[in-house]
Amino acid sequence: MCPKGFRATGIAAGLKPEGKDIAVIVSDHPAAAAGMFTSNLVQAAPILLNREHLRDGRARVIVANSKNANACTGEGGLADARRTAEVAAADLDLSADDVLVNSTGVIGVRLPMDTLKAGVRAAASQLKPEGWDAAAEAIMTTDTVPKKATVELSSGAILCGIAKGSGMIAPNMATMLCFLATDAGLEPEQLSARLQEAVGQSFNCVTVDGDMSTNDTVLLLANGAAGSLSPGEPGMDEFQEGLNALCLSLARQIARDGEGATKLISIRVTGADSPSQARTVGLSVANSNLVKTAVFGRDPNWGRIVCAIGYAGVDIDPNRVSVSMAGIPIYGSGGGIDFDKDEAIQSLAAEEIPIDIDLGSGKAQSQVYTCDLTYDYIKINAEYTT
Amino acid sequence: MCPKGFRATGIAAGLKPEGKDIAVIVSDHPAAAAGMFTSNLVQAAPILLNREHLRDGRARVIVANSKNANACTGEGGLADARRTAEVAAADLDLSADDVLVNSTGVIGVRLPMDTLKAGVRAAASQLKPEGWDAAAEAIMTTDTVPKKATVELSSGAILCGIAKGSGMIAPNMATMLCFLATDAGLEPEQLSARLQEAVGQSFNCVTVDGDMSTNDTVLLLANGAAGSLSPGEPGMDEFQEGLNALCLSLARQIARDGEGATKLISIRVTGADSPSQARTVGLSVANSNLVKTAVFGRDPNWGRIVCAIGYAGVDIDPNRVSVSMAGIPIYGSGGGIDFDKDEAIQSLAAEEIPIDIDLGSGKAQSQVYTCDLTYDYIKINAEYTT
Repeated sequence: MCPKGFRATGIAAGLKPEGKDIAVIVSDHPAAAAGMFTSNLVQAAPILLNREHLRDGRARVIVANSKNANACTGEGGLADARRTAEVAAADLDLSADDVLVNSTGVIGVRLPMDTLKAGVRAAASQLKPEGWDAAAEAIMTTDTVPKKATVELSSGAILCGIAKGSGMIAPNMATMLCFLATDAGLEPEQLSARLQEAVGQSFNCVTVDGDMSTNDTVLLLANGAAGSLSPGEPGMDEFQEGLNALCLSLARQIARDGEGATKLISIRVTGADSPSQARTVGLSVANSNLVKTAVFGRDPNWGRIVCAIGYAGVDIDPNRVSVSMAGIPIYGSGGGIDFDKDEAIQSLAAEEIPIDIDLGSGKAQSQVYTCDLTYDYIKINAEYTT
Repeated sequence: MCPKGFRATGIAAGLKPEGKDIAVIVSDHPAAAAGMFTSNLVQAAPILLNREHLRDGRARVIVANSKNANACTGEGGLADARRTAEVAAADLDLSADDVLVNSTGVIGVRLPMDTLKAGVRAAASQLKPEGWDAAAEAIMTTDTVPKKATVELSSGAILCGIAKGSGMIAPNMATMLCFLATDAGLEPEQLSARLQEAVGQSFNCVTVDGDMSTNDTVLLLANGAAGSLSPGEPGMDEFQEGLNALCLSLARQIARDGEGATKLISIRVTGADSPSQARTVGLSVANSNLVKTAVFGRDPNWGRIVCAIGYAGVDIDPNRVSVSMAGIPIYGSGGGIDFDKDEAIQSLAAEEIPIDIDLGSGKAQSQVYTCDLTYDYIKINAEYTT
């Protein structure tokens, strides 16, 4: 089930020793486009280019390569990104300004432009309406599975998206690429507002290791092939809900596939004075290496959770906080709650571990996703470039 | 070489299955006392008690147990800490208000008070001027080596200290205990100011895993047995320098012995607009799991360092930043610098890895210490309570 008027592909161009490494997505019609990017001060060349190309709120092509991030590559790297857009534009008979370029992989190495250009040309000749799965594969780096999600609206319009990312993941868009497309039609300003809302509740609530990358990008193209949506009409709310669900599904897939992860940890913080307070507490727990190793070890170690709540930098009363882990109440009224440890260890064998934290103050809440910290995270990251 | 007028000991009281677990340090004379504690909102019972006992700026006894942190233990835990002080005071014929109590270990479990009280009584009968090494052993938890340092001033006065801590270590005092003593004599306000300066440059610049504990404590007793120091006299500056050196030595020992660590990473940030800006950048790099695993893997991966500088939340110009690792310039002018990779990998085999970052702006600097992130960190923390 793919949105109408889009074609996609993923091919093996030889950037990686084996496997797909270049993805291209094209809208057959003019499309509104919105993007959100890393807040890291060190920004990769393609991000600088995409900001420029999105100024008019329109784009039709997404080109992405894995293996090389084209970050910290100076003026030469920016020229490489620009040249990539030009090559794609020439082959597809479009304006280079309508092409968004994306790179993920090692930082600080110039792209092998001959290989890349040949790959982009080859990909442009192999586009198909059902090519999304191949595109999802082509953007993988240390990912172990491709990430894809689709939502159908009652109007028949389709929202679909692919994403990659498993290390260097932190809120505010961290080494993550996510490409979303819909055949619903929205004006650029509307599209941008909808995207911001959806990303704030999904990708910006995911952390794998607290590291925020130089390349994080979420792009959304809307080509209107299934009809237009105007502000105020009921379909717009449904569109937002669908977009939220799409982004959340992809964000959860990213957390679950965090480098070396064996479990998804979903942290729900309620009873907060504001959503941002709830999110801050959730991220403090989600970024605690001690909490993440405890989940890996199936250890119902509530002390580490309470400790991470305590240093979140948020004004809370520890005596009003209650915590449950894998559905078992483990902390409340300023102390531990007796629980059956064997039962708890058994519950912690599940693939998804909920941690529920009630701050006992206001009515706001937030949900944050992360994964456990394992031997394989160390293995993957101690042996990455050498 | 120990400060005059102090006695110490460490004994095996049976809190741990084996090994020393209770330390007692006593000043034979009235002593000025200063303390600094965790900024975690969740504070262990002994910290609440010590704040109370330090209100008059005086104390004579330090009692510490390992194995159990007496944190998140409610009113009962506070009563346990108070009772511990009373037992020590009774045996040593002093006021309970002069006793500082410290606990480290598992959170959320009540102390076995019969064992603890018997242990404190036994320790109080075995105090010796040269008992510091035994005391340093008794406060160890996941530490692999005891930490001790001594400084002699030109006046003949001695500063000595012991410390413990290897996991849940982050700035602002994280599961770390540090007990310092000197036979120099200072008034309480002076002592407190001197301690704050020394801690700000040492323990607050150490991070192992970014987790800030509920129990972090630094205590300093000054009994004047080697004569008094007044504000303004030259000896006071020398005292401050000695105290700084003492704290820095202990802080480096803690970072080097971080859970699972194989290397000390010492990050020097220069060219900053302020010391706090330099420290923020240093801690951002020091807390990056990706940088820490790269050092473990002997991987000269400057991209991860530059990335962590970029998300430090500090206003810097990436194009003016330069970085060297293990003495080898690896990044500058917005891009990588060619270096001999084999030579770099060889340099990264050293036990201490310097990372030097010049922000290229102002003249302020700071130095931060951490360790690498290894398989053994995961092992230690995935298998801690279960």
